[in-house]
Amino acid sequence: MKRVTSRLLSAAVGLVMATATQADEGMWMPSQLPSIGKPLLAAGYKGNPADLADLTKAPLSAVVKVGGATGAFVSNDGLVLTNHHVAFGIIQYNSNAQRDLIQDGFVSHQRGKELPANPDSRLRVTTGFDKVTERILGAAHGKTGRAYFDAIDVASKALVAECEREPGMRCSVVNMFYGRDFYLVTQLELRDVRLVYAPPRAIGNYGDEVDNFVWPRHAGDFTVLRAYVGPDGKPADFAKENVPYHPPAYLKIAREGVREGDFVMLAGYPGITYRHRTAAEFADQVEWRLPTTVQVMQQLQQVIEEAGRDDRQAAIRYASQLQSLKNGIKRFSGELEGLKRSDAVATRRKDEDAMLAWLGGQSSAAVLRPPIDQVSQLIAAGNATRERDLLLGLLQTQTQLMRSALILQRFAYERGKPDPQRESGYQRRDEDLAAGMLRQVQRRYDPAVEKQLLATLLTRYQQLPDAQRLPEFDDAFGRTPAELTARLDRVYASTRLGEEAQRLSWLTAEPAAVEHADDALLALVARLQPALLRIDDERKAREGDLLRLRPAYMETLITYREKQGRAVYPDANSTLRVSYGKVSPLKARDAVSYDPVTTTAGIVEKNTGVVPFDAPRPLLDAIARSDYGDYADAKSGAMPVDFLSNLDTTGGNSGSPVLNARGELVGLNFDSNWEAVSASWMFDPRYKRAIHVDLRYMRWLMDKVYPAPELLKELGVPASEHR
Amino acid sequence: MKRVTSRLLSAAVGLVMATATQADEGMWMPSQLPSIGKPLLAAGYKGNPADLADLTKAPLSAVVKVGGATGAFVSNDGLVLTNHHVAFGIIQYNSNAQRDLIQDGFVSHQRGKELPANPDSRLRVTTGFDKVTERILGAAHGKTGRAYFDAIDVASKALVAECEREPGMRCSVVNMFYGRDFYLVTQLELRDVRLVYAPPRAIGNYGDEVDNFVWPRHAGDFTVLRAYVGPDGKPADFAKENVPYHPPAYLKIAREGVREGDFVMLAGYPGITYRHRTAAEFADQVEWRLPTTVQVMQQLQQVIEEAGRDDRQAAIRYASQLQSLKNGIKRFSGELEGLKRSDAVATRRKDEDAMLAWLGGQSSAAVLRPPIDQVSQLIAAGNATRERDLLLGLLQTQTQLMRSALILQRFAYERGKPDPQRESGYQRRDEDLAAGMLRQVQRRYDPAVEKQLLATLLTRYQQLPDAQRLPEFDDAFGRTPAELTARLDRVYASTRLGEEAQRLSWLTAEPAAVEHADDALLALVARLQPALLRIDDERKAREGDLLRLRPAYMETLITYREKQGRAVYPDANSTLRVSYGKVSPLKARDAVSYDPVTTTAGIVEKNTGVVPFDAPRPLLDAIARSDYGDYADAKSGAMPVDFLSNLDTTGGNSGSPVLNARGELVGLNFDSNWEAVSASWMFDPRYKRAIHVDLRYMRWLMDKVYPAPELLKELGVPASEHR
Repeated sequence: MKRVTSRLLSAAVGLVMATATQADEGMWMPSQLPSIGKPLLAAGYKGNPADLADLTKAPLSAVVKVGGATGAFVSNDGLVLTNHHVAFGIIQYNSNAQRDLIQDGFVSHQRGKELPANPDSRLRVTTGFDKVTERILGAAHGKTGRAYFDAIDVASKALVAECEREPGMRCSVVNMFYGRDFYLVTQLELRDVRLVYAPPRAIGNYGDEVDNFVWPRHAGDFTVLRAYVGPDGKPADFAKENVPYHPPAYLKIAREGVREGDFVMLAGYPGITYRHRTAAEFADQVEWRLPTTVQVMQQLQQVIEEAGRDDRQAAIRYASQLQSLKNGIKRFSGELEGLKRSDAVATRRKDEDAMLAWLGGQSSAAVLRPPIDQVSQLIAAGNATRERDLLLGLLQTQTQLMRSALILQRFAYERGKPDPQRESGYQRRDEDLAAGMLRQVQRRYDPAVEKQLLATLLTRYQQLPDAQRLPEFDDAFGRTPAELTARLDRVYASTRLGEEAQRLSWLTAEPAAVEHADDALLALVARLQPALLRIDDERKAREGDLLRLRPAYMETLITYREKQGRAVYPDANSTLRVSYGKVSPLKARDAVSYDPVTTTAGIVEKNTGVVPFDAPRPLLDAIARSDYGDYADAKSGAMPVDFLSNLDTTGGNSGSPVLNARGELVGLNFDSNWEAVSASWMFDPRYKRAIHVDLRYMRWLMDKVYPAPELLKELGVPASEHR
Repeated sequence: MKRVTSRLLSAAVGLVMATATQADEGMWMPSQLPSIGKPLLAAGYKGNPADLADLTKAPLSAVVKVGGATGAFVSNDGLVLTNHHVAFGIIQYNSNAQRDLIQDGFVSHQRGKELPANPDSRLRVTTGFDKVTERILGAAHGKTGRAYFDAIDVASKALVAECEREPGMRCSVVNMFYGRDFYLVTQLELRDVRLVYAPPRAIGNYGDEVDNFVWPRHAGDFTVLRAYVGPDGKPADFAKENVPYHPPAYLKIAREGVREGDFVMLAGYPGITYRHRTAAEFADQVEWRLPTTVQVMQQLQQVIEEAGRDDRQAAIRYASQLQSLKNGIKRFSGELEGLKRSDAVATRRKDEDAMLAWLGGQSSAAVLRPPIDQVSQLIAAGNATRERDLLLGLLQTQTQLMRSALILQRFAYERGKPDPQRESGYQRRDEDLAAGMLRQVQRRYDPAVEKQLLATLLTRYQQLPDAQRLPEFDDAFGRTPAELTARLDRVYASTRLGEEAQRLSWLTAEPAAVEHADDALLALVARLQPALLRIDDERKAREGDLLRLRPAYMETLITYREKQGRAVYPDANSTLRVSYGKVSPLKARDAVSYDPVTTTAGIVEKNTGVVPFDAPRPLLDAIARSDYGDYADAKSGAMPVDFLSNLDTTGGNSGSPVLNARGELVGLNFDSNWEAVSASWMFDPRYKRAIHVDLRYMRWLMDKVYPAPELLKELGVPASEHR
């Protein structure tokens, strides 16, 4: 059946993508925008593409990183607009039984009343983006494998340390096109962040999990923060005497809204995509990785659900893990469904075959083809142990006591080295986090359930062919399910890692003492550790070679696309990117069409009075009054809430400002549709959509429902009675 | 909240209904069609409205009643087209382990191979529809209450007996406009029905319960039957020598399909609607009856679910009752949701108020107003005991042993009278059905569950005010939950009605023996019976008066509507009706739009390979080949499956032929959308839609997927290669 669907759809995809790609797909580095100025202007942009080239200059310098997401400066006095769900930690931090800002929302009517965020809140403003390819690859030239990997690691750490010598700066080295280009990103880190305006949860997160990934959507997912600095204008921790930060630039809020077909663009920090992976990697993802991961996760889900049926205590302890397994299963199934729907594997394969055929006729073929073939061999080599690696990965994330033992032994091993040479995640600065994890074990652990989870994973492991199994593991767990069960029973019956004090004490114990501990579980893991270190080493050697060789693949792809008249953007890697497109409806299924703008009527339709569809009374009253001023759509009279575009986004784009053709702020990105879950691998223009709060809805709420006239004035869009 | 929605929507409803009613709403008696010829022609009908006036003449004489649903003759040799779900019993009857027609479908390639239906299958062709108001009401004039009711009952029974003297005829007396007009319906009853063509279940019922009430839909819900008669041309039981029946008329299948906006009309036997009920009855339905019924049914659902959690046997025995409670809850909740969405109560109230105000200024007011006021009083009187009556109704339908005892005692009581005077349902001809019910008890009964169901209903009963309670019931069940439980325990511990032979023997025992039986449950019910007979008598007296007085209300409504330029159709009552409208999309919710035509692409999208989305391989292969001949839409190239119209339908319209502007057959009605569940009370043109199989899909299946060229030829639409 699936093959049938695929065959039917592939023709359509090919057709649409060939004509639409340049206008729809792309997470562009700002420096690339002048080179795609022609399609950008053709799509409707009214500004000068050259103005968008430098992310340290206006308007892109108004875009900020808010934790793992995005936001934007919207006033000269440091107001920042981001999502309610992005600022949720700050709202929660300021809430308590007496003052429930989650439930009630928050409006500050004067600066002195703005509420300090949790002390670890950070806003980052990019102040430098410098190409450092030669400095990073200089020492790597001529090396291969693990040595190539380490040379890059050392050079990057050195550059970052040098850069962070300036106080208040956070630096990082990122690579573009899988190792072809390296950049040093310099960011000013603002540490005094305050809460200015938040709608109640039932507006900001209207629909919650039920509406997650759903269009049509009706959430007012926005919050206003303000950045403060010390009286000297430098980043500072919270202090009464701090003053508002004056950003290098801020975005102007549009007076008009958007309609279907209007040009929009978006800037933000998308996390990670895999679109330029090879056809073999696409096939691995669709044909093996996603279905297998879902299958194993479902086995684990079943273990937990069965255990919880008779044991309420176990059900409670594993509720969070169960929830996360379910989310993962849903997410991966959605990705699989989407990639099949788009016939991603065949499409990518056809594209790659055509590229390689074209390369054969080029003079560069003799240079580029061998490394491309080596990339394929490296990927195949990595895949040779993929079943084992998946199971070991789950062993480390889906257990509590086993994970604790693995962490403790690895810490003991790394603590034998000077701190800078310790593995990331096991450095001195990571010890607090590890202690926190070790403390949480108690609330999430039940020995019977953990043993069943381990038995599930390791029984699968025992069935792997010899080449994938590890002598240390065979030794430790035996070769039959009966042996496995007996050993797990024995180890779990005697280990004392179930006691919190025990676990914490091993974190600071002498490395040798941990390695030779007489605790049964620590001793078991000590026997496994050589195998795990060996796997780690092999992985890094492979990654080093991939960093060395993949650029040839990317080079070929870029030149091939150029010939097709298409530019190539690097896969997302949490750096600032720009995408452009238009306000777009969605034809999700046969005979089902979604308009690109939702209205307040939909809030009333969805409302049940019960969480998550429990819109607050003031909102319902305002809707009943149709008191929309000039925020409503002039033609239809309807009050917009959210809108949909075909902008290219992924996780990390939450809170990204959405701009109109004149570069004015019209929306705030906050989610994408279910059909677009697979866009991390393939952008299918038929289904990829991004979901935005319409700023007219935000302004209406701030004007008529939970009024903040001072704020609207500062935002340059005064409330009706103040104009 | 609800009030808010309502207020917002009512303006829109008023607006749409005022302009659209005549084109969209209406289940017209054929004799009414000439009087609405103008709007009918304006809507696009190309024929002569006068030709539709007589349901005993072509084309309406081609419409047949198939059980409780509809079908149509489609060839001169008696082929009948109806729904797969309507003919399901016939398909099931012909299926066994060796020949599974449900799973595989059926194609007869020659007449001798057509399969006889179950012997109780019936097709009815209406041959007479005569106004008999005077003959029915003659003896009732001057009477009131129970006497008025009985006079109508006696006159009707006499007319029917006289009419059925002709062999092969079935007759009934129906009333229109709630007692204003009476008609004698004469139907020729065909008893030899044969199966000619049925698609596999996975086509005919693709989507099953999941897609029930759902648009977009992708079912090929059709089946072809053939009517046979004896060699003398008269109705006969199945016999080898029987010959195809030549119907008085048959419908021609259209060569072209329909598109959005095209005129369509439909004829069939809609079951029951309540649209001309009074505003007080609307309020009772929305404010009390639907929410209370749902609430009590949910209590019963909970009892069954809880019992089934620990007791697999009980879970199995009550699975069917649970399913039916859930369906009822879903259905009633949907009706409630829809009536609230349409603000039905306020709209109806406003309409009625305006009507009464207008009446006040008329000379007829002095005549018509008093009976209208009496109608309101009668409705109010009936409502005074509505809680009790609801609970007693559920007591009789949601139990097994209690119900058996109630049926046995009532039969014993009725068997003391001459057969024609026995209550309908308790006459001699009903005894087989009763015995069948009594036999099934075993498979659906568990004493613990039944006692809990009774306790739930009767505890609610005990809490009713004195005026609603019955001395006999208080006496039998006590006044406190503790008394109730003790008595139920005692009765259920000793009754022998749990044994099938016992139950059946009481059905034929001497009436006096039953009345004085020493079985605890029969004895208990014997104590209740006087109360139940009294309630029955009160109900009939009220119904008699309503039949006497409601015509004044209808008279006023009809005249008032005339003044508004609108004709009035009688509420549906299982008689032949015609509705007309157009192929219409549906805007179901904010930002959600449904196209009015689905395509085969949607079958592939929905297909999971698992029931109910397990389209057969030959269908999927044919879709993959896009081998659509000229059945596909010429413009889009897509192959249509089902389509949506705004035709006015209700239960009973299943299998109704859908005709185009030239009176040719283009579709087959089979369901309506979820948003239209409330249309039995109010037709809201924004949401009321009917779902039809597109006959192009049927023809394509018969031509390319499960070929039946002979049949297509007989249908006048030969397969491509035979033209």
